[in-house]
Amino acid sequence: MRIDIITVVPDLLKSPFEASILQRAIKKGLVEVHLHNLRDYTDDNYKQVDDYQFGGGAGMVMMIEPIDKCITKLKSERNYDEVIYMTPDGETLNQKTANKLSLLENIIILCGHYKGVDQRVRDHFITREISIGDYVLSGGELGAAVLCDAVIRLIPGVLGNETSALTDSFQDNLLAPPVYTRPAEYKGWEVPEILTSGNLPKIEEWREEQAMERTRRLRPDIFEQE
Amino acid sequence: MRIDIITVVPDLLKSPFEASILQRAIKKGLVEVHLHNLRDYTDDNYKQVDDYQFGGGAGMVMMIEPIDKCITKLKSERNYDEVIYMTPDGETLNQKTANKLSLLENIIILCGHYKGVDQRVRDHFITREISIGDYVLSGGELGAAVLCDAVIRLIPGVLGNETSALTDSFQDNLLAPPVYTRPAEYKGWEVPEILTSGNLPKIEEWREEQAMERTRRLRPDIFEQE
Repeated sequence: MRIDIITVVPDLLKSPFEASILQRAIKKGLVEVHLHNLRDYTDDNYKQVDDYQFGGGAGMVMMIEPIDKCITKLKSERNYDEVIYMTPDGETLNQKTANKLSLLENIIILCGHYKGVDQRVRDHFITREISIGDYVLSGGELGAAVLCDAVIRLIPGVLGNETSALTDSFQDNLLAPPVYTRPAEYKGWEVPEILTSGNLPKIEEWREEQAMERTRRLRPDIFEQE
Repeated sequence: MRIDIITVVPDLLKSPFEASILQRAIKKGLVEVHLHNLRDYTDDNYKQVDDYQFGGGAGMVMMIEPIDKCITKLKSERNYDEVIYMTPDGETLNQKTANKLSLLENIIILCGHYKGVDQRVRDHFITREISIGDYVLSGGELGAAVLCDAVIRLIPGVLGNETSALTDSFQDNLLAPPVYTRPAEYKGWEVPEILTSGNLPKIEEWREEQAMERTRRLRPDIFEQE
């Protein structure tokens, strides 16, 4: 899988891809992530990428021309399955969407910044708009990092143990059951007896019950989707 | 505001706080963000922070002792309003929660990693569990960065133009209207005439209509909350 991220603050995106699971996935050659600085696609000396909005009002808007140039150049080099714009008014990301996106070959992710991009970019270049949640961030960069993390960890071979992602929350419309590790007793707080019993079928049963109970209590909305 | 983030991969969190708006907020002294490496709170030579889960199964679990030590040390130094754990089964972050959290003085954010933290940490040390959305990430670090960004940009003085955050999506249960900037015509695509008319009351009216229409079409769920 290849991901091209277009941004005005590439520095912001460095460390998420230089640590932990994403770094390992890149090193293993399971995914390529390329950061493109939008300022490299400007013609003027000021490397201007944004301007005041028509009609007045606070906040700058990202201009269409540098974005057009960058996307057009990338598209001339290979085919893209999706050109995604990160925006709080996009479709809300969920595990199902992450699963689907993890099957794609090439995607472009455009990060908005300031007040967002010129609407004509969205009308003519973007194939999909994604939001990571109902809150506003100072730019699309963290959203892009979140989207990449959610998607990349699902690519086979990325997680050390392939069964690990399958038992995550949401994969079966259930929250994960509680987990415990050593020591079995800490300051008088003990792990549930069943987990140290060695009775694997009973443990599985307990975990399923816990997952159901937790989902019903905390997220009746996803429970009802089943 | 002071934010203490506890993590096993502090490197992952570096760049989000060294660029753009978060960096400026820190430089202006409007917020302090401290990263704590959980491995500094271990006693053994291996700096072990995780272990296999009781009852078997894929994925490691973060141990209670280093977390207890770190939180207890921080709490001995000052009072905290909330000790937040980032987890996909927490309450879903939204703009309302971000607004409320931006009024707090001191918070601790614990980032889960691997399969999560020992349940006893959640039972005894955590005051609030927050999810940034219905998808699984490889750790709580990006979630913590997202939470910090959503909250910090709301602190008065952080954004250059104070009115800027008020016209964002969700602040009035509406998505933002479309925005446009120069040039007024690009490859035959023109900005809506009204925006270059100079008629400010009409422009305001148009924006409100657009915001309503967009919200009704894309997010009837938030529209109905009004």
